Amino acid sequence: MLSAPSGFCFASTKAGFKYKDRDDLGLILSKVPAKAAGVFTRNKFQAAPITIARERLKLYKEQIRAILVNVGQANACTGSRGPEDCLDSLRMTAKVLGIDPEHILPASTGVIGQPLDLNLWRACLQDLNSNLGSKGALHVAQAMLTTDAYPKTCQRRVQLCAGEINVLGLAKGAGMICPDMATMLCFLLTDADVEAEQWQNVLNYAVDRSFNRITVDGDTSTNDCVLALANGASSIRVQGAEIKALQQAVLEVCQELAYLIVQDAEGGSKILRIQVLRAQDDQQAAMAARCIAHSPLVKCAFFGQDPNWGRILAALGRSGADFSGQQVSVLIQGRPVFLQGSPVQEDLDALVAQYMSRQEIQLIVDLGQGSAEYELLASDLSLEYVRINSAYRS
Amino acid sequence: MLSAPSGFCFASTKAGFKYKDRDDLGLILSKVPAKAAGVFTRNKFQAAPITIARERLKLYKEQIRAILVNVGQANACTGSRGPEDCLDSLRMTAKVLGIDPEHILPASTGVIGQPLDLNLWRACLQDLNSNLGSKGALHVAQAMLTTDAYPKTCQRRVQLCAGEINVLGLAKGAGMICPDMATMLCFLLTDADVEAEQWQNVLNYAVDRSFNRITVDGDTSTNDCVLALANGASSIRVQGAEIKALQQAVLEVCQELAYLIVQDAEGGSKILRIQVLRAQDDQQAAMAARCIAHSPLVKCAFFGQDPNWGRILAALGRSGADFSGQQVSVLIQGRPVFLQGSPVQEDLDALVAQYMSRQEIQLIVDLGQGSAEYELLASDLSLEYVRINSAYRS
Repeated sequence: MLSAPSGFCFASTKAGFKYKDRDDLGLILSKVPAKAAGVFTRNKFQAAPITIARERLKLYKEQIRAILVNVGQANACTGSRGPEDCLDSLRMTAKVLGIDPEHILPASTGVIGQPLDLNLWRACLQDLNSNLGSKGALHVAQAMLTTDAYPKTCQRRVQLCAGEINVLGLAKGAGMICPDMATMLCFLLTDADVEAEQWQNVLNYAVDRSFNRITVDGDTSTNDCVLALANGASSIRVQGAEIKALQQAVLEVCQELAYLIVQDAEGGSKILRIQVLRAQDDQQAAMAARCIAHSPLVKCAFFGQDPNWGRILAALGRSGADFSGQQVSVLIQGRPVFLQGSPVQEDLDALVAQYMSRQEIQLIVDLGQGSAEYELLASDLSLEYVRINSAYRS
Repeated sequence: MLSAPSGFCFASTKAGFKYKDRDDLGLILSKVPAKAAGVFTRNKFQAAPITIARERLKLYKEQIRAILVNVGQANACTGSRGPEDCLDSLRMTAKVLGIDPEHILPASTGVIGQPLDLNLWRACLQDLNSNLGSKGALHVAQAMLTTDAYPKTCQRRVQLCAGEINVLGLAKGAGMICPDMATMLCFLLTDADVEAEQWQNVLNYAVDRSFNRITVDGDTSTNDCVLALANGASSIRVQGAEIKALQQAVLEVCQELAYLIVQDAEGGSKILRIQVLRAQDDQQAAMAARCIAHSPLVKCAFFGQDPNWGRILAALGRSGADFSGQQVSVLIQGRPVFLQGSPVQEDLDALVAQYMSRQEIQLIVDLGQGSAEYELLASDLSLEYVRINSAYRS
């Protein structure tokens, strides 16, 4: 049962942007101005809502009142009308809500190149406003979905000296983490009272260890963003050593949501937990893990439940990471298949039967060099992935 | 009709390494010592035959007599027995042929981790020797195949002042260009008399503009190599300005073979000719082209015959290439779908009908920055690709 942090209320409605018979516009409203933080896609093509949310965070990071999210029209690569349409949609919404349009953060997801249809906005905003408060966080989580199989939410309560604070996260992964549909969105809400700069630091820390450690197809979207509001409605000031407790709660929420995103990868049948150990440094470890995680052949092998370690080595070998082949070991579910440069004489079929049918499979690649480590969650590459993504304008 | 360059003869036989009822061991023998050149995989895991061929090229690059190729056992990641087995196979073969084992270049392809079965070598070498000369180049091209649909050969004759020289190329792409099966192999033969260092330069030039400009799944194999022999049997010395003519012929042979490899990509239904224009420099152009060529979503879209240019932009946007979104244009078969930062209001369905069903589709990405260009041939990502690569130990 989701109980939202104090001082937030929620609304959603059917705008009909793309999906019919379901809500596709969601609103999170804070009753008081909130400290806001954000992490945005690094794609050079940034959707209009990303540009605008980023600007607002710069100017109004202690006065944000709302997050407004629509699905079905990404408003990315829409030329000069993109920002104009986004601003118009915010003005219209602000007017209905009776707040300042500058204090709303926008987020959009959908097919790249599709502009906002402002007539659809106009027609549904009264309904959005009128159901504010009668809907809950789960309704917004549902309204955010595109091709996700289920809404993704996670909550943590943290007991501090002065009382309890509440952290809630809502996310969509759109099935695949990819450029034109996935547009991973996550909204984090807390009623803690925290200084704006510290809130941004907490967010950066958590995102780096969660959403930046998952991959479905290696693409980053034009619309990816994580927006976080701390409205202080609990009246519990978090500072000093207690920041760590808040940070841990936000991290756990982000990690849980990131896991759910990989689990719900469109067409994905497995989660590979790829751990690169004993690399020379963090960058080497990350390079190795990412190259393995993105290899179509490794992903196909896991889909086929084949512990084909040759493909893992070959991906490692072209990753650019520094190592000596003689020092490398590969373990599947803790069981060595390649040990310090030589194949293990194993009955691989037995290994398959035992481990490869599991939904989550752990893959350890030990470079035998230094002490740096990196962990990444990846989906497999399935027939269903190709089916979905080759369907016309998925 | 293949007519081999003078002074080469060919043999092949059924060793039974993996495939039954077909030849899987091939031999190219030069009647006189040949100048040899080679280009090898940059994967950090290098198969034993790669290491040994590289060493021999260093020591004996003017005395090479033969190329020996086996399929079905890659002898990659086989630990310390890998080089020993490879040397044993060369010694046995050299003894039967009556040549020095140091003067043979080995090449192997197959599943990574599988060692050579020397008993199978022992049993078939007499037959290999006895059919030397009664078989032709096409037999070796056939014996080199793994999951390729057809043998890949290409020939050019070049008229020089002193007479005609002949350049012949044999290649295998193994369906996919990938780490554990593809093991792209190519052997180039000429009867031209050319200085060893110049022959290596000619090869580097051609490979950089052909095999290094194709991609199926972005992987490089532990066994990839291009080996080239120039035996001088035509008695036509190529030097000075005529080197250019030889270089052009070798380039054409390599480009044709590279094209055939992409065309025969396993599961591939299309060839995407990706041209990045007006980049700031060559590196930027290559980064952009490669990121688009490797994007699973772009590849799935082309498989689905969907001109989904949003996916192309999203891949470009994460490529790391430097550009301004306002300057970017995308053209499919010469027809603009995105022009200087804005979508073209086009009937995309009409575009699909006209172009997307073609086997080869040209994609131009104009960065509007500088004058550098890069062209890359890529396959699409199909259901069949996943089927093949998720089949147990494909």
